[in-house]
Amino acid sequence: MTALTRLFVSDNAACVHPRVWDAMRAADGPDMPYDGDALSQALDARFSALFGRECAVIWTSTGTAANALALACLTPPFAGIVCHYDAHVEADEGGAPEFYTHGAKLMLAGGEGAKVTPEGIAKVIDPIRDDVHRVQPHTLALTQATEEGRVYSPGELAALTAFARERGLRVHLDGARFANAVAHLGCAPADAGPAHGIDTLSFGFIKNGGMSAEALVVFDTGLAMEARRRRKRAGQLQSKGRYLAAQLHAMLDDDLWLANGRAANAAAQTIAQAAPDRLLQPVEANEIFMTLTAPEREALRNQGFAFYDWSDSSARFVTCWNTSEEDAGALAAALAAL
Amino acid sequence: MTALTRLFVSDNAACVHPRVWDAMRAADGPDMPYDGDALSQALDARFSALFGRECAVIWTSTGTAANALALACLTPPFAGIVCHYDAHVEADEGGAPEFYTHGAKLMLAGGEGAKVTPEGIAKVIDPIRDDVHRVQPHTLALTQATEEGRVYSPGELAALTAFARERGLRVHLDGARFANAVAHLGCAPADAGPAHGIDTLSFGFIKNGGMSAEALVVFDTGLAMEARRRRKRAGQLQSKGRYLAAQLHAMLDDDLWLANGRAANAAAQTIAQAAPDRLLQPVEANEIFMTLTAPEREALRNQGFAFYDWSDSSARFVTCWNTSEEDAGALAAALAAL
Amino acid sequence: MTALTRLFVSDNAACVHPRVWDAMRAADGPDMPYDGDALSQALDARFSALFGRECAVIWTSTGTAANALALACLTPPFAGIVCHYDAHVEADEGGAPEFYTHGAKLMLAGGEGAKVTPEGIAKVIDPIRDDVHRVQPHTLALTQATEEGRVYSPGELAALTAFARERGLRVHLDGARFANAVAHLGCAPADAGPAHGIDTLSFGFIKNGGMSAEALVVFDTGLAMEARRRRKRAGQLQSKGRYLAAQLHAMLDDDLWLANGRAANAAAQTIAQAAPDRLLQPVEANEIFMTLTAPEREALRNQGFAFYDWSDSSARFVTCWNTSEEDAGALAAALAAL
Amino acid sequence: MTALTRLFVSDNAACVHPRVWDAMRAADGPDMPYDGDALSQALDARFSALFGRECAVIWTSTGTAANALALACLTPPFAGIVCHYDAHVEADEGGAPEFYTHGAKLMLAGGEGAKVTPEGIAKVIDPIRDDVHRVQPHTLALTQATEEGRVYSPGELAALTAFARERGLRVHLDGARFANAVAHLGCAPADAGPAHGIDTLSFGFIKNGGMSAEALVVFDTGLAMEARRRRKRAGQLQSKGRYLAAQLHAMLDDDLWLANGRAANAAAQTIAQAAPDRLLQPVEANEIFMTLTAPEREALRNQGFAFYDWSDSSARFVTCWNTSEEDAGALAAALAAL
Repeated sequence: MTALTRLFVSDNAACVHPRVWDAMRAADGPDMPYDGDALSQALDARFSALFGRECAVIWTSTGTAANALALACLTPPFAGIVCHYDAHVEADEGGAPEFYTHGAKLMLAGGEGAKVTPEGIAKVIDPIRDDVHRVQPHTLALTQATEEGRVYSPGELAALTAFARERGLRVHLDGARFANAVAHLGCAPADAGPAHGIDTLSFGFIKNGGMSAEALVVFDTGLAMEARRRRKRAGQLQSKGRYLAAQLHAMLDDDLWLANGRAANAAAQTIAQAAPDRLLQPVEANEIFMTLTAPEREALRNQGFAFYDWSDSSARFVTCWNTSEEDAGALAAALAAL
Repeated sequence: MTALTRLFVSDNAACVHPRVWDAMRAADGPDMPYDGDALSQALDARFSALFGRECAVIWTSTGTAANALALACLTPPFAGIVCHYDAHVEADEGGAPEFYTHGAKLMLAGGEGAKVTPEGIAKVIDPIRDDVHRVQPHTLALTQATEEGRVYSPGELAALTAFARERGLRVHLDGARFANAVAHLGCAPADAGPAHGIDTLSFGFIKNGGMSAEALVVFDTGLAMEARRRRKRAGQLQSKGRYLAAQLHAMLDDDLWLANGRAANAAAQTIAQAAPDRLLQPVEANEIFMTLTAPEREALRNQGFAFYDWSDSSARFVTCWNTSEEDAGALAAALAAL
Repeated sequence: MTALTRLFVSDNAACVHPRVWDAMRAADGPDMPYDGDALSQALDARFSALFGRECAVIWTSTGTAANALALACLTPPFAGIVCHYDAHVEADEGGAPEFYTHGAKLMLAGGEGAKVTPEGIAKVIDPIRDDVHRVQPHTLALTQATEEGRVYSPGELAALTAFARERGLRVHLDGARFANAVAHLGCAPADAGPAHGIDTLSFGFIKNGGMSAEALVVFDTGLAMEARRRRKRAGQLQSKGRYLAAQLHAMLDDDLWLANGRAANAAAQTIAQAAPDRLLQPVEANEIFMTLTAPEREALRNQGFAFYDWSDSSARFVTCWNTSEEDAGALAAALAAL
Repeated sequence: MTALTRLFVSDNAACVHPRVWDAMRAADGPDMPYDGDALSQALDARFSALFGRECAVIWTSTGTAANALALACLTPPFAGIVCHYDAHVEADEGGAPEFYTHGAKLMLAGGEGAKVTPEGIAKVIDPIRDDVHRVQPHTLALTQATEEGRVYSPGELAALTAFARERGLRVHLDGARFANAVAHLGCAPADAGPAHGIDTLSFGFIKNGGMSAEALVVFDTGLAMEARRRRKRAGQLQSKGRYLAAQLHAMLDDDLWLANGRAANAAAQTIAQAAPDRLLQPVEANEIFMTLTAPEREALRNQGFAFYDWSDSSARFVTCWNTSEEDAGALAAALAAL
């Protein structure tokens, strides 16, 4: 990667926020191993305060692990998990949900912008006869913001979780980009998910300025011990956990997570507004999906912009907590000039 | 934990080596996610050079994950893994081997100092009729250094691996404290394990001054792709892998890993020699197991020493890469004074 | 169920053929347990002769078990199995494939008559990037005859298996109604599947006059021992296996399986020809799918016919090896009279 | 096997009782598939009456499947199952418990006659720290009669189940030879197990004159639906279930199961009393373990007796429901004459 590259490949490609580094360095003394350190022990209270609802928090090293652990705690091996067919748990986790749940079946619903709806879910699960020959739906997995950069409103979440309760479904929320969703909605963090009766949340920090710590937030605290046992069994209980806990604390301090999310969203808006006619989806978080021909994509790459093709005729750009105004502006200008 | 505590609880309790920090900071720019970064891509060559044998290297966040991934690549679900009954994979990984292998059976052999022998293994596997009613042994899992701080000599390893080949067993080496073993043996790194035809090695760095990166070294490179797929599926493929790879490179630079192992071993010798009559095991690595009555343990704790009870009448002390001469000396003096 | 009921619910509802009973009684002496008896030991040779191709045969108690065992032998846990979305392995086995394979992912293709095509499969697997984030397709599962009563021609099978080889896919054939398919094609048994390079076949007998024995036919004989181990591990190795083996031998004697398949197909034709305009699918085996309104279905049920609704506006009738001319004729007449 | 062979290899080697055959033939009409037939539906009530305690009963084709299903319903994947090291679930089921439970760990206790005791169990589980690093014991698996032909008295069962409750362990009873145990004890069937608060029982019939049906008896009826789902997922839900249910009914009619158990036990006594000094275990059920040198075993085999070696210096003889007085007497005479 040359110094001139402007990276819009993924928010995973960004570096780590200085305050996260500082917190990790501050944790750099001897302490009790695993999650016996003071920082890890303080997480439950910290997130309970953030969401105004009692919860247990366990750090993991990836969002995939957080999602898969949550789904395993919620779903028996012989049952099903409803999600959008573009959901990360279905499409990008290498089968981790099937591994952690011991073979639960993912049941795929459609929906605009990678958002599911009660109607879309009903279409998948209502034809399933309730007998032992059919795998029965048990859990609903939502993503906030979605894989196409869309955000569920509190009203949509209320409708989805009410529907889930009516059908006896547990609810997991994949919040790899939860910060971007809250930043977009401008609501209390709880209202972007937890307040609506979800059971578990993968609260992502790594894409948002962290290094290696995600938070699995367990609102059904009766599942917390099981989640901790499953974490160990999955090889996810790091022995120097304080360096993970420190990252989470740093992100919560003064709502750094939210500031970072807002910054990424703002950069995305700069880019989106440069070529609104090209947008495949309204830009609500930090991902921009645009119609771009192959020659157009090549032209952009020749100018030093790195990004993924989304299809033969489109591209995905992702902004980060530290996407510079200069970089966002340069991309906006390049798009406008095409 | 007060500032006055002298921590001999675990090498996991130690902080991170400054050169590891430096390498992580040096990696702190944007780069390709997952293991697409230059540092991760360079690992295979780096470890192949170290061991003088081609290998593939994948980072994981825990030794448990490295062990379990290796065992899953080597062992079908319907087969067995022979290990010492005190082995970490049996006793301290929360069932991770069973999880990753989908239910392979651990078969427990005895042996002095948590070391297995061909005779001890034969005693376990020879009575197993070769039919479908019995789970058949398939893999041998060794630990170097062992859970009781003992080190297999090259000769012992040669005998064990020859025996394994004769019986058709694959061989995994859990090297959570491989550095301490090499430091003790004073041999080439390969001679402490890899040169003897083992298939996989968990090369531990976290206990030895690292933060969060272990190396799963796959000598049977035909298994490398499978190991990478299983790592992703286990939620172990971190998106900012460069911070893990940086740790491994820092540890290999100028053989920092070996220097750290030697330092920990030296501190252990200081302590061991203060009360040789109390030793339950010869001290070969960085763990000291001593006969100590409950009042004696209480007396030590009252002086600020932290450590684990090993049994009703014994204790375990673990030294670290950065155990100070002062701390080791203080413990030695306290032991001598009992 | 009254004596007057005419049962078209399922071929599972039929009783057992007298020659199967006779063979079971003939086996009713003391013999070696499990599959150590002479009848079980003779199965490999018997089926190898039938198909003109070396194979290993293991009995199971259900088609679900045979399918799931085959898929587990062919597919690693982290890979995918392509099948039609209406395939029995996806829709009617309670998650058995996921259980036996330890979480392989079923990948669903479309296709008229529950038949898949190379194009339909390509549409599912070609967009899958070959990286560790995506579960990779590994096995193709076909059904002969399909869940909608359709039969793959030898030419279609040749094209599908050639395509599978080209894409590196193993091939399993679910032949719960293989007898009906061969009866329809009028070809050599091998040409209805085995001759085209498939790896495994579930050859169904229970729906076709058997009681409790299906044959898992393993053409890749290198997998036979693994299949036997997995059968035991699945609790499928019955201790009095001779009563299962006897059923299979009875079905092969004088091609009873084929005669039974022909009889069921003939009864299906009688019914189909009574109301050709109602057919949703050409009737090629022993299942008839017909457009029938709710009042029409009620009228039929009032005349003593038992069958399953297929949708709000259609019904499924299944004929059996012993569906009487009288019953088939009565249903045909009733349909014609609607 | 020649006509002259006298088979003491296993009770699995025996043929099927005529009344079982009769009941199967009587069931040989069309009926609803799976367990929708009248005979299957009547099982819950039938066994509830037998045991004087509400239970759900599901047939399986093997004792291995019944045991593994029960253990899977009782035990989470990350927990442990305590059993004797000679227990069938540990030693003879090809890893089925690990498969069905998704990797639960079997924890092995000792005990005379393959019987466990509260003290022996405590020795295994009490050293297990209650933390996430150690797999925690969750279920106790007992065998009645044991693998060495011994029978737990009601008093012993009361003590074991009280101990289990105290330690929070669920209890499964493997009753592959439950009939022989009840016959020995001369007590009510419930008092040989169910009355003492066990959760699940594998009630064996195949070794005792049945053909292919065992009964998994679920006393914790809240688990019944899960057991039924797991049975389907395991490929154990046969489509013509009425032939299995018929076997179970025939065995309960007029207590045929008990008469058969008594007959086998009586034959065992005939043999045991011929050479009491050779007995390794008191003969309480239908297995006889005797000290016999290799030449002695050869001499017996030359006289037409078939049996298994138990060790280099001993043999196992098993009697069946239909071991003739002539055969038992002949073996007794041969043993006395050695």
